[in-house]
Amino acid sequence: MASAPKANAVVGQSGGPTGVINASLAGVITEVCKHPEIENLYGSMHAVQGIIKEDFVDLKDLSISVLEGMAHCPSAALGSSRDKPDEEYCAKIFEVFKKRNIRYFFYIGGNDSANTAHIVNVMAAEVGYEMRAFHIPKTIDNDLLVTDHCPGYGTAAKFVACAAMGDDLDNRALPGVKIDVVMGRNAGFLAAATVLGRQRDDDGPHLIYFPERNVPVEKFLSDVEAVYRNLGRCVIAVSEGICDGDGVPWAKKLAEQGETDAHGNIQLSGTGALADFLAGQVKNELGVKRVRADTFGYLQRSFVGFQSDVDVSEARNCGREAVRLSMNEQSGSVALKRVGEGKDYAIELICTELRNVAEKTKCMPDEYINAEGNGVTDAFVEYARPLAGGLPKTYFLGNYPRV
Amino acid sequence: MASAPKANAVVGQSGGPTGVINASLAGVITEVCKHPEIENLYGSMHAVQGIIKEDFVDLKDLSISVLEGMAHCPSAALGSSRDKPDEEYCAKIFEVFKKRNIRYFFYIGGNDSANTAHIVNVMAAEVGYEMRAFHIPKTIDNDLLVTDHCPGYGTAAKFVACAAMGDDLDNRALPGVKIDVVMGRNAGFLAAATVLGRQRDDDGPHLIYFPERNVPVEKFLSDVEAVYRNLGRCVIAVSEGICDGDGVPWAKKLAEQGETDAHGNIQLSGTGALADFLAGQVKNELGVKRVRADTFGYLQRSFVGFQSDVDVSEARNCGREAVRLSMNEQSGSVALKRVGEGKDYAIELICTELRNVAEKTKCMPDEYINAEGNGVTDAFVEYARPLAGGLPKTYFLGNYPRV
Repeated sequence: MASAPKANAVVGQSGGPTGVINASLAGVITEVCKHPEIENLYGSMHAVQGIIKEDFVDLKDLSISVLEGMAHCPSAALGSSRDKPDEEYCAKIFEVFKKRNIRYFFYIGGNDSANTAHIVNVMAAEVGYEMRAFHIPKTIDNDLLVTDHCPGYGTAAKFVACAAMGDDLDNRALPGVKIDVVMGRNAGFLAAATVLGRQRDDDGPHLIYFPERNVPVEKFLSDVEAVYRNLGRCVIAVSEGICDGDGVPWAKKLAEQGETDAHGNIQLSGTGALADFLAGQVKNELGVKRVRADTFGYLQRSFVGFQSDVDVSEARNCGREAVRLSMNEQSGSVALKRVGEGKDYAIELICTELRNVAEKTKCMPDEYINAEGNGVTDAFVEYARPLAGGLPKTYFLGNYPRV
Repeated sequence: MASAPKANAVVGQSGGPTGVINASLAGVITEVCKHPEIENLYGSMHAVQGIIKEDFVDLKDLSISVLEGMAHCPSAALGSSRDKPDEEYCAKIFEVFKKRNIRYFFYIGGNDSANTAHIVNVMAAEVGYEMRAFHIPKTIDNDLLVTDHCPGYGTAAKFVACAAMGDDLDNRALPGVKIDVVMGRNAGFLAAATVLGRQRDDDGPHLIYFPERNVPVEKFLSDVEAVYRNLGRCVIAVSEGICDGDGVPWAKKLAEQGETDAHGNIQLSGTGALADFLAGQVKNELGVKRVRADTFGYLQRSFVGFQSDVDVSEARNCGREAVRLSMNEQSGSVALKRVGEGKDYAIELICTELRNVAEKTKCMPDEYINAEGNGVTDAFVEYARPLAGGLPKTYFLGNYPRV
């Protein structure tokens, strides 16, 4: 393996923002400053778009206060994009790379972004351009392969857990049926995280539905009816990606126009259609009077001032690690490996090949979903609890003795 | 005026929960313990419902840790109700009051709750039952008369400000049109609070719509088009109660079935219909490709772990004050009077007659709304900023120099 080239580096943030993608960026910046092999660090505005437009910010020039502030601020400080580079696009990228002597490419994003890094890396080899390409994982959906979990998931998990805790208290105060639609695309990890704040036996969410298990309307309604009859109320978390009995996503069925992005993903978020459909079903079919439905929406990935400390720290370390790896490796994707459970929770950073992460997605393992397909197991809680960090205690006096 | 009777007290929480209604309850509890005139303090489960069912918790028996934890936990620890007592209902209340020697009634809630306290107070006088009735204000809508602002508003304002800050960052990262529907019923205070986190000239929300100004679709679309043409993106906050050009609420027009509660309020929250309607308009009429719409929903009043410190402290003091007042007055509603502005922000607690608050609502004053009817004035920011408390700084590198 050749020694690390003396050259410039570019870093970009791609795909949907998260609560800690800027922490990963901060990790890249601080680590780059330690390696004289890397002269300039260009921050590419709006991911690969910024590369072909040469829309670059000098990241070594940021003040410490901006760097540290940014590390605790959600969303993508460099902007993002959902562009998927094809051969022509990549040719343009290399033109700029050659012109600017860029030989380090750090790309923070999901599986689509890993694929972009992979494509650029393969094409560089083909054209004999010496460079190093590293993917730094992020996604609130937690759906990347190899890694134990994704930076961004813990913060989103904390958000939906606190949202569900509040919702359950609200539903205790004014009983009825409450439906919350949670992000996650085709993976149920984020919907599952709504359980993390449960403290009493009858705390909600009482039912959770995942894309990993088909949910026919009849099954949904009979589940809701049983809980409502038993408790006089019901809080339900529904993953945006749930599918009908025939395996077709409900959101797809409901969407009049199936808007898709460049990666062929249909729009699941930013609409209340699924929540309203389910609420209508409960109202009309079960005759429940008070039915409310919320779609947690973009707050799950961009709410300000509410991060998981563990998540921030891990995200930052992933950014650092990508730079360290680039000193000795050709390419790769940083991944988290769990080496301690429960109170001894700990992770190690490892490196996997880009193609192991590119374009593939992970679903919730069977052992995290209960037999009924409408809730989680203890194994899930054990898995997810350390990622969201400590959650506040909640109070309701309804279980106190009467006088 | 007769001296304070030696008797028992009841406290209830009514209407929609807020982030600090439990702080007011904590204030009532601690203050009651200082006054030997009040022997037992009954917490009535689910507001007036708990009184007629004698569904009471002994609040003097709570541990300090529960009291302090509860004070920082959102929603109504005693449960709530939207029952509006009529004469028959009140007769039942008095039966229980007599049976239990209850002569102090503390009711935490909005204008409907002030009205309930008023009705009970008037009927007590009519039947010659010596008692004292006090209303403790709460509402995230901030729509009560007399008081400078309502406990509960500051915490909800902080939430929507942080939500809008994150949303604006997200919209910078992936530009398009983003519409956020905010609670507030017929008052625009909460929608207005989405501006409180603005830090850069081009920070969103770029447009805000209030129930106080009719919003014809054409006006809405031409505003959005102008911002989008100028910035290439647009973040919009819309109050759930906005009305069409003819003064009819859009939500009402959109609701197929106009579900109303006992107070005749139509359901504005817990549905994504308004947001989806507006998004459809922007998509179809303006041809903008990326349009997203979120309804912030119940998170605004019940999200866990995210209070405004000022709000918590004021809510608690209002609870305390109601008990203090009951030692010397017959009835009243606690109100906040602002006695210092800006950095010298300070309030004093005053007492107003129940009928001044009962059933009436306050709208945004004209001087808080800009001439175009699509944004706020500096006067509003000066008014609301101290209530939400300090907000985090946000970071986006798009305005940095290029290299």
